[in-house]
Formats: sequence, structure tokens, C-alpha cells
Amino acid sequence: MTAPFSDDPTLAPSRPVVRMRPKSNARAIRHGFPWVYANELVTDRRTKALVPGAFAVLEDEARVPLGLVSVNGASKIIARMIDTDPNAVIDQAWFEARIARAFGLREKIYDTPFYRLIHAEADGLPGVVVDRFGDVCVIQPNAAYADVHIEMIRDALASVTGVSCILKNASGRTRGLEGLDDVSMTLLGETPSAPVPVLMNGATYMADLTGGQKTGLFFDQRPNHAFAAMASKGARVLDVFSHVGGFSLAALAAGATSAVAVDGSAPALELAKAGAAASGFGDAFSTRQGDAFDTLAALREEGATFDVVICDPPAFAPSRQALDAGLRAYERIARLAAQLVADNGILGLCSCSHAADLSQFRAACVRGIGRGGRQGAIIHTGFAGPDHPMLPQLAESGYLKSVFFRL
Amino acid sequence: MTAPFSDDPTLAPSRPVVRMRPKSNARAIRHGFPWVYANELVTDRRTKALVPGAFAVLEDEARVPLGLVSVNGASKIIARMIDTDPNAVIDQAWFEARIARAFGLREKIYDTPFYRLIHAEADGLPGVVVDRFGDVCVIQPNAAYADVHIEMIRDALASVTGVSCILKNASGRTRGLEGLDDVSMTLLGETPSAPVPVLMNGATYMADLTGGQKTGLFFDQRPNHAFAAMASKGARVLDVFSHVGGFSLAALAAGATSAVAVDGSAPALELAKAGAAASGFGDAFSTRQGDAFDTLAALREEGATFDVVICDPPAFAPSRQALDAGLRAYERIARLAAQLVADNGILGLCSCSHAADLSQFRAACVRGIGRGGRQGAIIHTGFAGPDHPMLPQLAESGYLKSVFFRL
Repeated sequence: MTAPFSDDPTLAPSRPVVRMRPKSNARAIRHGFPWVYANELVTDRRTKALVPGAFAVLEDEARVPLGLVSVNGASKIIARMIDTDPNAVIDQAWFEARIARAFGLREKIYDTPFYRLIHAEADGLPGVVVDRFGDVCVIQPNAAYADVHIEMIRDALASVTGVSCILKNASGRTRGLEGLDDVSMTLLGETPSAPVPVLMNGATYMADLTGGQKTGLFFDQRPNHAFAAMASKGARVLDVFSHVGGFSLAALAAGATSAVAVDGSAPALELAKAGAAASGFGDAFSTRQGDAFDTLAALREEGATFDVVICDPPAFAPSRQALDAGLRAYERIARLAAQLVADNGILGLCSCSHAADLSQFRAACVRGIGRGGRQGAIIHTGFAGPDHPMLPQLAESGYLKSVFFRL
Repeated sequence: MTAPFSDDPTLAPSRPVVRMRPKSNARAIRHGFPWVYANELVTDRRTKALVPGAFAVLEDEARVPLGLVSVNGASKIIARMIDTDPNAVIDQAWFEARIARAFGLREKIYDTPFYRLIHAEADGLPGVVVDRFGDVCVIQPNAAYADVHIEMIRDALASVTGVSCILKNASGRTRGLEGLDDVSMTLLGETPSAPVPVLMNGATYMADLTGGQKTGLFFDQRPNHAFAAMASKGARVLDVFSHVGGFSLAALAAGATSAVAVDGSAPALELAKAGAAASGFGDAFSTRQGDAFDTLAALREEGATFDVVICDPPAFAPSRQALDAGLRAYERIARLAAQLVADNGILGLCSCSHAADLSQFRAACVRGIGRGGRQGAIIHTGFAGPDHPMLPQLAESGYLKSVFFRL
């Protein structure tokens, strides 16, 4: 195959070539692993001269082409597989095809236009995350090539989805690792001046797309919210590390009698209140601002009990070095929370730590529950929803786990 | 605590004592592991004289009581923890309390009375499985004590749930391992003369409670049926190893345009057809009787493609010895099935093999998909539903896994 001629030098037939070192894992790349680490690539003068985000043909040590990669000498992930066809032309039509494929899956699964539209590698756009909130898309271009081609991605997104507003969120920690700036901006349309209503699991959430954490709302927990909601009919619910009320609003929509959201962030709790008001939950919803550990201990002092308690903390074990301390923190949360669960009640514990796998996290939870004087049976284990697809090659690192216990 | 006096000798305060051998794992028992293996127990003359199903106080090597167990010298699991209180009185009220607790969880979660009501150890009744089909309960008493006390369990079940019919299903493979007979019978009410309609995921299934596989219907896949259904709107669905149509009927209820059920069992397919008729699916549902491998190959020959393909085979790896052959069979199914999936379609692969863990099963699926010339991203990993609780101590052995790929 010969690529069509293009006057963009990065797309020309004579595009740069980068080569894997002898004994590096070209076989993994052939089997779909999407990344080349810096120590696997021959970094000669020509490779070093490539601008971050440049496309190049990746070859194995025997000079056999493996595909087209984007190169970023500033990143530990020095090359990301863009297309297994080394002659692929990366133009707007290419981005449209990738986005249309991801869009097709979401449209099939979701009744309302609120979902993660692009989940990076597994959706064919390495390092790129796009969340859709109705008429607004928020892009996180966490790889250099996506920054370089941001207008093309914007136009492809608008063309496939028809949204009228596209925001760039550059606040992600990952961009620093890629040597990219943290300047967020509006790429298309008007910057939303107010939180955007998001319809999920029967409730209305409010997402602050310009000031909030991450992209203003976490879509990944949706199926776990749904599970907790199903188990919350007629229940008193405690939602710890609630953010904008993910678990509590879904539970109220499913018939919980009351829900208390606990979070350290006052703005997050304001959004949760606004969501509860928009959902018509009235006095059934209340909030408690403060440190989660302190609040759990205080509730225990007050003699409070709940039929359903869910804890969805930030990543306590974001790295291997933090693993032991992180597992101890999960154990402590489990202990404190278990003591608040009524007999035959439900305790849901979540982790978004890459470093703690399901077995380790579950074991920490079981130890904590035991130290809280309780015993539990596992009734549900859940992961991120289908709008967060995973490459099988990266499946062991699936970060989100939630385990629900009947105590 | 002193147990109240009872005139049943197995319940008297002077109940038998069995003791763990030195260096056996009493610590695991203290932490909730529910089984004592035959090689862990001192089997003196008195222990050997205990009738299968007798209750005894279990002591550690230092003669400290660990709880009340049921003993069965005919089983490799020689003792099962019945109650951590060594003085517990096992009477109808005790069974009612255990059943009521399990019932409370199901009633909270399910809108209709169709579920696994008792899932053995994790529901506090070791070895006992009870499935509920509306007004009928089917008991599988897969431990000797449950056979001995079957009338008490029957009465407790009727009292807690109010069902008018209770069947004993003695066909389980497990009963042989416990030295128990395979005589099924009606314990209460009239034997149902026709298949019983079961309402799940918007469809009506037909369960043959006296002639079918297991207890006539598998409740464990319900959440995976629901996931597949959610992804099947407007889709052409292929349901391989369909049994009574678990995946296909749920998919049609959710808006699939057509579904084909493949199974080797003509009676299972007749029940699937009856369920489809009762659900009003008309011509959208069809069946194909035959060997699954052959049928998948034949469909490939015919050039057939489907938007959603699900394969839910019997346990290919029921034991460690069968693991390698089992994984090869899963790989082969994945390869054959992947070739029938339309572009951007969905492939769901299930395993109910204890011996193959999630990583091994997933790897076999990925190999098969690759050999079928396809690449997939994982969009969902699911396990058995919440009416199949698991003790955390047995969680690694959670047998049912389903992995859904977008191809």
C-alpha cells in the first residue's frame, strides 16, 4: 500500500522511522500492546529531533514495520501505536472513523447522551479521553499528538456527534508526564456559564465542566451506582467521598428513604445539593462536609446506623510505593464504615487505585470489616462501565473495582 | 452460655466433640473459613461412630471450642461450620432465622419472587441451595445434615416465604461426594405438572422444575443477561449454549431484532421456544439444535454474521486436571464465535469453571479472538448476581465469569 500524497510533512510518504532496540518486546506490540517505553527505542539523533507528537513508522530490530506511532521524547511512553497500518493517513477522516466507532457503541448502550465517548487506547485514540454531557464534549488530550492535532479532533468530534460546545480540559496529572501544558480552553461554542444537568440512573446530577474535579463528573461508576441503587429501596444510605452525589442520588431515585453525602469539598456538595433539588428529592437528601475518616468516627459516636453504606475514596494507592499505606487506608475505611452498617445491611467499598489489584483490595476490605467486629459475604464485584473499554493487554491494570458486602 | 435442654440427643448439652489435628488450620476457621478437610480432623473411634450429618463441637488442638459443625465421615469436607456458637441449638427457629436473613436480602433487591434464596455457606446454610420460582421452592440439600433435617428446613422455608410447594432436587453431582442418594421428591404441596413461568429481565422464561438441568433454570447469569440485553437494542443476537434462552430472551425483551438460540438439548430449546412464545416474541426468535462447535462452524460456512454473539458453555475446566484442555476449548469457542461477529459488534464469553480463574479464562478468550483474526476491547466483566453471595474466604473460587468484548 502507498499512502496518498500529502503536503503536510508529518504525513508524507517519507515519514520518519523509529526502531525498537534488540531484545525489546516487539512481539507484545504485534499482539496489541500499545506502548513503547523510552528504553525500548533506539534514540538516535534523528529520533531526538522529532517534535513531540510527530508520527513515525515503528520498526522492529529487523526493520520490519510494526505500524504508525506518535513519538514524544518527553514521555516515558516514548511511542504510542496510532495505527497498525504504517501507511495510515492521519487526517480528519481518520479521526472521524475512530470517533464514529466509539460513538456507535455508546449510542447502542445508552439511552441518553451522557457517557465517556472516547476512552483512549481501547477506543483507538491513545491518550485521548472525551466525556460527553449532552450538547457538550470535554476533551482531555493527554498525549502530544492530540495537542498538535486538537483542531482536527475538535472538528471530527463535532461532525460525528453534532455537539455545539467542545471544551479542552488540560488539568489532568498525565499531561505533566507528557511534558504538556495545563491550559484549558473552549474549543467550540460558548463556555457553559452554569453546571450542566446529567441524567443517569434515574437521577439528575450537576456537572461543573469548567471548575470541577476531572471533567466534572465521573461516569465510570455508573453501573456500581446502579447496583447500589437496586439494593437501596427503602434504605437509609450513607455515601462517603460522595463528590457530586453519585451513589446517593441514584439510591434516592431508586427509592431510598434518605441519603447522606459526605465529602471534604464544599463545591462538590453544593453540586450534589443542586442535583438532589433538580431530582426533586427534598429533605431526603442531606450533606455533611468534612474529612471522611473523622466523619465516619463522629457518626459512630452519635450511634448512627445505615442500611447501605458506600465509600468511594480517591486513589489511596496511586503507585507501587504507596501500596502498603494505601491498603492500610482502605482497611481503615472498611473498619470505620462497617461499624455503621445495620444488621443484614450492605457495605460497598470502591478503589480507583491502579496499584492495588482486586485480590489485594478485597483482602484489605475483609480485614477492615473483621476488625470492625463484623463478617461479610460478597454480593457484587463491579468495575468501570462499558463506556470505559479496556485493551486486554492492559486489563490487569483495570483501576476501578467496587466490592459490595452483605454484613 | 448454656444451651437450653433438648430431648434430641444430637442437640443435648453433652453433644459430641471433634478435634482438629496439631498444625491444621484452626486459624482459618477462626477467620471464617467454613470447612474442615478429612486430613485435618482427629478421626478416632468416637468421631468415626458419628452418623453422617451429626452435629458436634469443633475444638482446636488445644481443646478451645471453635463452633458447632456438622460431621460427615463420608465426605472429604468432614466438617462444615454451622454456627460459631458451639452451644447453638439447631431447631426450626434456627433455620428460620438463617432463611429470613437471606430472604430479607433478596426481597430488598428483586421486584419479583424469582431468585436463588439460599446460596449455601455464604447464606449460613452450608451445602444447602434453595432456588425460588414464585410459589415454588427447590431445595438441593448437598450436605448430610440437611438431609437429616430436611423436614425442619422445609417447614422453616414455608414459614418464612409462604410458598405452597417445595421440591427436593437430589440430582446434584455434589451429593455423590457426600455419600448421599439421588432420590428427588416433592416435600410440600403438589408437584408442578408443567414448566413454571419465571419473570426476569423483562422476559418470561419457562423452567422445568422436575425434569430439567440443575434446578431448571440458572439464576446466576441474570446480571450478565441484563448487560447483554442492554447492548442488544436493534441487534441480531446469537445465543450459543442457550439452555432455556437466558441471553436470547432477555435481548429480545430489550429490543433485539432477532435472536437465534443454539443448544444440544432439544428439551431445553422447547422450553426456550415456550418462553419466547409466552413473551410474545413471535418470529424474532428461532432455535438451532446441535453441537455448538459444529453449529458455529456451519454458521461461518453460511456466511452468517451477528451484532451480538454470546457463548455460555458448560464447565470445560471443572477440575485442575482438566484445566489445559478446558482453556483450549474456551479458546476454540472464542475463535469460532469471533468470526461471526459483525464489525463493532459484541462478543460475550462465559465460563462456569472453578479451575479457570478470570485471568486464565480471559487470556484464553483473547488468544481465540486473535486466532479468529479479530481484536477486541473488554467492555464488561461480570460475575454471578447478588443472590449468589460468596464468603470472602472462598472468593477466589467464584466460578462464574463473563467477559464481553467489542470487536
